[in-house]
Amino acid sequence: MNNKNIEEWIRKKQERRSRSTPDKLFSGIQSGDLAALSAGITLIESQLAEHRELANELIQKCLPFSGHSMRIGITGVPGVGKSTFIEHFGGLFSDDSHRVAVLAVDPSSAVSRGSILGDKTRMNELAVNVNVFIRPSPAGDTLGGVARKTRESIILCEAAGYSTILVETVGVGQSEVMVKSMVDFFLLLMLSGAGDELQGIKKGIMEMADALVITKADGDNMKRAEIAARDYKNALHLFPPNANDWIPRVFTCSALTGVNMDEALETIRSFENHVKVNGHFEQNRREQDKRWLSETLKELILSGFFADESLIEKLKINEQRVADGEISSFQAAEELYEAYQHERRI
Amino acid sequence: MNNKNIEEWIRKKQERRSRSTPDKLFSGIQSGDLAALSAGITLIESQLAEHRELANELIQKCLPFSGHSMRIGITGVPGVGKSTFIEHFGGLFSDDSHRVAVLAVDPSSAVSRGSILGDKTRMNELAVNVNVFIRPSPAGDTLGGVARKTRESIILCEAAGYSTILVETVGVGQSEVMVKSMVDFFLLLMLSGAGDELQGIKKGIMEMADALVITKADGDNMKRAEIAARDYKNALHLFPPNANDWIPRVFTCSALTGVNMDEALETIRSFENHVKVNGHFEQNRREQDKRWLSETLKELILSGFFADESLIEKLKINEQRVADGEISSFQAAEELYEAYQHERRI
Repeated sequence: MNNKNIEEWIRKKQERRSRSTPDKLFSGIQSGDLAALSAGITLIESQLAEHRELANELIQKCLPFSGHSMRIGITGVPGVGKSTFIEHFGGLFSDDSHRVAVLAVDPSSAVSRGSILGDKTRMNELAVNVNVFIRPSPAGDTLGGVARKTRESIILCEAAGYSTILVETVGVGQSEVMVKSMVDFFLLLMLSGAGDELQGIKKGIMEMADALVITKADGDNMKRAEIAARDYKNALHLFPPNANDWIPRVFTCSALTGVNMDEALETIRSFENHVKVNGHFEQNRREQDKRWLSETLKELILSGFFADESLIEKLKINEQRVADGEISSFQAAEELYEAYQHERRI
Repeated sequence: MNNKNIEEWIRKKQERRSRSTPDKLFSGIQSGDLAALSAGITLIESQLAEHRELANELIQKCLPFSGHSMRIGITGVPGVGKSTFIEHFGGLFSDDSHRVAVLAVDPSSAVSRGSILGDKTRMNELAVNVNVFIRPSPAGDTLGGVARKTRESIILCEAAGYSTILVETVGVGQSEVMVKSMVDFFLLLMLSGAGDELQGIKKGIMEMADALVITKADGDNMKRAEIAARDYKNALHLFPPNANDWIPRVFTCSALTGVNMDEALETIRSFENHVKVNGHFEQNRREQDKRWLSETLKELILSGFFADESLIEKLKINEQRVADGEISSFQAAEELYEAYQHERRI
């Protein structure tokens, strides 16, 4: 290469690099450039330390423009029809002045590399809707990491002007507790059936729901779905009230026939009005922020122990000693803490 | 003092001290000496570091003789009639070969210095029953500390031969999650009424119960209690099943008339048989031990941050900055973690 070529090469390289600086990404995101939004989320999802710094910078820039959306969590066991529901639901919410972002939290994606939203073909209509942005669950990480990335992605989507954020998750593990703590409204999809439909749902999830929707209320299933809805409605009033004073709604719907899909929309509008009037909307978000601060901080501090393989080895040994009745769990914890402090002093 | 007096004084002092050595306490506890059991629990409750060591030694000695009891958690909002229920219930369980220990977990006792079981006169009959040991909630500590002390007290009571341990708590906060994680059976007492009886109960507690008992089913209240019991029974089968395959029982009772108090006894006997046959009894205890190890270890590690006043000050500042939308909660956590690491390096 001669000097001129080298200069040209450096110029191009700098240009390529500057295209992905937080500044460039931020202005792209604000102007509605989907490639910039995608690149920004990819930056958030990166494991590299230098990317982490850039991502933090980008989030800082987006932060003042975030928050102005309705964040909706949607959960249900596999087979309940989440994709079909979101396909219709997202369509109802979106028009040229109301754009919808669909994100996913899937802890199993660490293994399967994304089992939900991984295949965009499952949402044919939404995928081609220009007012809808779909992003599959980030893979290969801990649940805490996935949650953090999703929460930061919400900030970016809001800065990009999306007014409704749908966060999809699978109702079988810890992930919905995470999702509940990052959304304004939590919707649980359920199947009607012979009673065994609950096997997949974790205890405590029903109590977190702001709306309980019995899906696939069509054809032969319609009557059964109505009976299930009535039973749940009767049951829910026996349970302790929500902090936000909202009485969870229960209804059936069919994404196939479109019956009652508007009820879901109306429910969320009513809820939004309810919690914005009584102040719980803001209060809930403040509490969520505080909780995320505390959770992240604890995770960082604990990583000093849980990222150390020799300490993890000692933990397993002590777990066995406790199981064998050799030492109490408190004594075992104290021994491990001493080992941890010793390790840090070296 | 002359030499002889000094020698005498030292001898007496040593004798006093040896009386409360772990060895002495342990043999006292095993021989059914109530004073030794009380002194042992007092040692567990002490905040002094040297007492902590002695307490650990005592627990180590008791550990091989612990575990052979049915641990029962009892909760319910103030006014539900916990004391009256336990008074009758404890009486039913105890005879010369079945001794009952009643302990309490009360997080509010840090302020009120023991609002439950604090006044033994509330349990007149139990207090004079020679087969029953009653110990009020330890006061002036964190919830984690109170829970630890209660769990260690259970070990001492079991080593002392108590075959039923009742752990009482108030159903309004975090304490019942703690209690649930240290007992084999969890019983929730509820009032029937005009619907507002749930105001005091925290969400999620009903789902943790192995039995739900509607109290004060006597006089004018009887019919209302029966209706409430039927409603709850219908509702509970709509909720996800327990890991132990046990279907929670719902019934009314009256400690006043004694009606159905035997049902409570029979329920626990059935439960014990059910979970001992299907292996969940042992499995649950192993999981509880593992969880306590992990919780205690985390608490110890985190105390490096949360016991440092200057870091707590910084935490408060950053919480405000997050609330003001200045920085993201993740950024705030990272800053605090850096401050924590810096502090440790000094």
